[in-house]
This record gives sequence, C-alpha cells and structure tokens, in this order.
Amino acid sequence: MSLEQRLSQLGLVLPATAAPGARYAAVVFHGDVAHVSGQLPREGDRVVVAGKLGRDVAIADGQTGARIALLRGLAALRDELGGLERVRQVLKLTVYVNCTEDFVDHSAVADGASTLIHELFGADLGRHARTSVGVAQLPRNGCVELDLVVALA
Amino acid sequence: MSLEQRLSQLGLVLPATAAPGARYAAVVFHGDVAHVSGQLPREGDRVVVAGKLGRDVAIADGQTGARIALLRGLAALRDELGGLERVRQVLKLTVYVNCTEDFVDHSAVADGASTLIHELFGADLGRHARTSVGVAQLPRNGCVELDLVVALA
Amino acid sequence: MSLEQRLSQLGLVLPATAAPGARYAAVVFHGDVAHVSGQLPREGDRVVVAGKLGRDVAIADGQTGARIALLRGLAALRDELGGLERVRQVLKLTVYVNCTEDFVDHSAVADGASTLIHELFGADLGRHARTSVGVAQLPRNGCVELDLVVALA
Repeated sequence: MSLEQRLSQLGLVLPATAAPGARYAAVVFHGDVAHVSGQLPREGDRVVVAGKLGRDVAIADGQTGARIALLRGLAALRDELGGLERVRQVLKLTVYVNCTEDFVDHSAVADGASTLIHELFGADLGRHARTSVGVAQLPRNGCVELDLVVALA
Repeated sequence: MSLEQRLSQLGLVLPATAAPGARYAAVVFHGDVAHVSGQLPREGDRVVVAGKLGRDVAIADGQTGARIALLRGLAALRDELGGLERVRQVLKLTVYVNCTEDFVDHSAVADGASTLIHELFGADLGRHARTSVGVAQLPRNGCVELDLVVALA
Repeated sequence: MSLEQRLSQLGLVLPATAAPGARYAAVVFHGDVAHVSGQLPREGDRVVVAGKLGRDVAIADGQTGARIALLRGLAALRDELGGLERVRQVLKLTVYVNCTEDFVDHSAVADGASTLIHELFGADLGRHARTSVGVAQLPRNGCVELDLVVALA
C-alpha cells in the first residue's frame, strides 16, 4: 500500500504548506537523502499546540502536536517531490520538546510522531532512529519541534 | 587492533541491550552510514546518572554518564550488525547535557564520550565532529543524552 | 562567483581557527558530505556574544553571533580542505539559541546565519534545511551555537 493510500486509510490529509520563507528551505536533497527542516505543530500560519509540557500542555496534546508537525514534514516532502512515491524511510527523527525543568516524559511525546510513522510506513520501513530532548523554549512557543533525515527511493 | 580488542584491553564490556521498544529503532542504516538513536546513561532499565549538571551532578559524574551512553550506542551497533567489525568511524556525536541555566562546561562533560572514542578508534579514525549543548531536561532525568552518525566499512 | 570572491565582496574575512583541540575535530568528511562541529560566536579564544536571548542579548546581537559562528564553520572547512572551492551547499543548519523560557524569536536569530548563507552561496545553492531551538545554556555562555551538514563538490 502506498504512503498516499495509508494516509487516506487513516483519514489523514496532508496540510497545504506555506510558500517557503526566503531564509531557508523546508527540504533539501542530497543524493537519495532529504533533510527536512524543523517543523512546528502549525496549521497554516497558526501554532495550534503551544506551551510547555509539564505545565501548559498535557502529554496527549503534546503527542497531537508531534503528529501535526510530522504531517507538515511529509507535506513539505510531497510539495518538493511532487508526490510521496519516492519517500522511502525516515532514517532519523529528532524531537525537541518545550518543557519545564522537571518534565521527564519526552519519549511519550515523541511517540506521537513515531507511532504515526509506523502506521504510515509499516513495520519494516517504519523503523527509524530517534532522539528526544527537552528544551527551554521553541519558536513561537510551539510545544514540540521535530526534524527528519529521510531516505528516498 | 580491532574495536573488540580495544574494549577488552580497556576492561570495558558492552552492555546487553534491551529488546528494542516498538516505537523506534536503536539503529537505522542507509548505505554505509548508521544513525544511532539518543542514548541515556542506562544500565539495563535504570538511568544510573540522573539529574542536572550545575546542581545535582558533578562534571566527573557527567563524564561517566557520557561514557555509559556511548557504550550503549556501540552495543546497539553490535547487536544490529552482529559484531563491531564494520564500525569504522563516528562521524558526528551530539551531546545533550541536562543542566542548570548557568552551567557552561558542556564540553567537559562531552569529553567523557570523546575521549573514549579516541581510546577505542585511535588517533585517526577517532576523529569525530561534535556538538554539545545544555538542555532543560532529558528523558527520565538522565544527566546526558547522546546520539551518533557512524560510518561503516 | 566563487565563495572566496563573495566573502571578499561582502568585506568578510574568515577567522584563523585555533589548533584543533585533542578531543574532537572541527570537521569530519564522509564521501561528499562534511559534518562541521558546533560553532560558537568566538573570535580567537574569546566568546564575543555571550548570554541569553530574552534577557542579556538583543536579537540583532544574536544574529551577529550566528554570523560569526557560521564564518567559523566556513573557516574550519577552508582549513581542512585547503580552500573553499569544494564547498558546494549547506544541506542542514541547526541553530541552538541560548535563551530564557519565554523567548520565542529563535527563527529571527537563526536568520543571521541563513541570510549570510544566501549572500555567500546565492539563491540556488544557498537553499538549506534548518532547525532552530532554544536551549537552557551553551558552552561558555555563548548566545548561540550552530552546526552544519555540508555537501562538497
């Protein structure tokens, strides 16, 4: 089943992506590897899950934020590649969690993105390396930011 | 001398690694590059050096934590590759230090891992790029987390 | 126009880089990709823009810090490669901003480096993926730290 079909089956629609800002690109390719820029849980121009885990944002909402950010990353790939056919595997997912100094469940938040990767790519190609850490703050007070290194077919 | 022999000579034993969690993989390969997931200073299921540099954890203990995390990363490579023969060089080491807002010796903590890389890989193949930063918190209150990009033979 | 010529045209001089420390390398190559270690806004051995965005350091000064750090990264590439001819494109720029818990303009700070990349590499090869996050502290209280993944010709 293709990635497009999986998305459809899960009832997910990739968002429209904004015209890329002038200062950096959403995706850059080199050989069969794509570097996807840091993604926030945005819908259009609005950050929809903002604030700190451990104070403002519940873990379930942080997971939702991570899912939204991941879908934005896939949307950026779709826009640059003209489709998702060549998106083979997420090699590395880095998840930055906006959190208080005593929040320690970053892995649970990151699972919001990791679970979706498995749902979309399947058990084999859904395998991805991951790092999740807790940061002092994120752009526009996003609750989470994630970036990707992706292998293309 | 092989990496296995170096470990033995230094009196180091790579830990057993847990059965990988369902949500992400400890290592993912692409061509001759391996992405190793963020590693904490764990022994089995227990984080053995927890807390913040600058308040709870002395620099020497942070260095020990970085060493333990590095050995876990090598153990993950061994388990995935069936040995360490193909592990050629750490290309990039990123070290996240759990610290207070006024701790500024992240480099000293990261040296715990970097020194061990040199001891294991030697002067030439021990060369690695590195970034070390101070973060607000880490999963399970680990004092340090590190990930690796590794070149395979 | 070559990168050297662009630098000259912009009136920029790459700094001398210190003899590399023993523990890690400023740049490591693998195939046609270079990993550049985390760079601080240093001149010689001194961090010239120190402190936290949101409290000690204005955005414009943070941007200056990011520019200085980027130039140090390019200087490291020049020193390792014996020149800049083979430096083709920044694939990924990661910017760590030392900030308070309520500072949310990390993107503006990172633009200090991204704008310079465009000035130096031009509209096409100046395209780079980017992640910017806010961290609790950085080595030696630097206001910003950045690292690079770079494609070589």
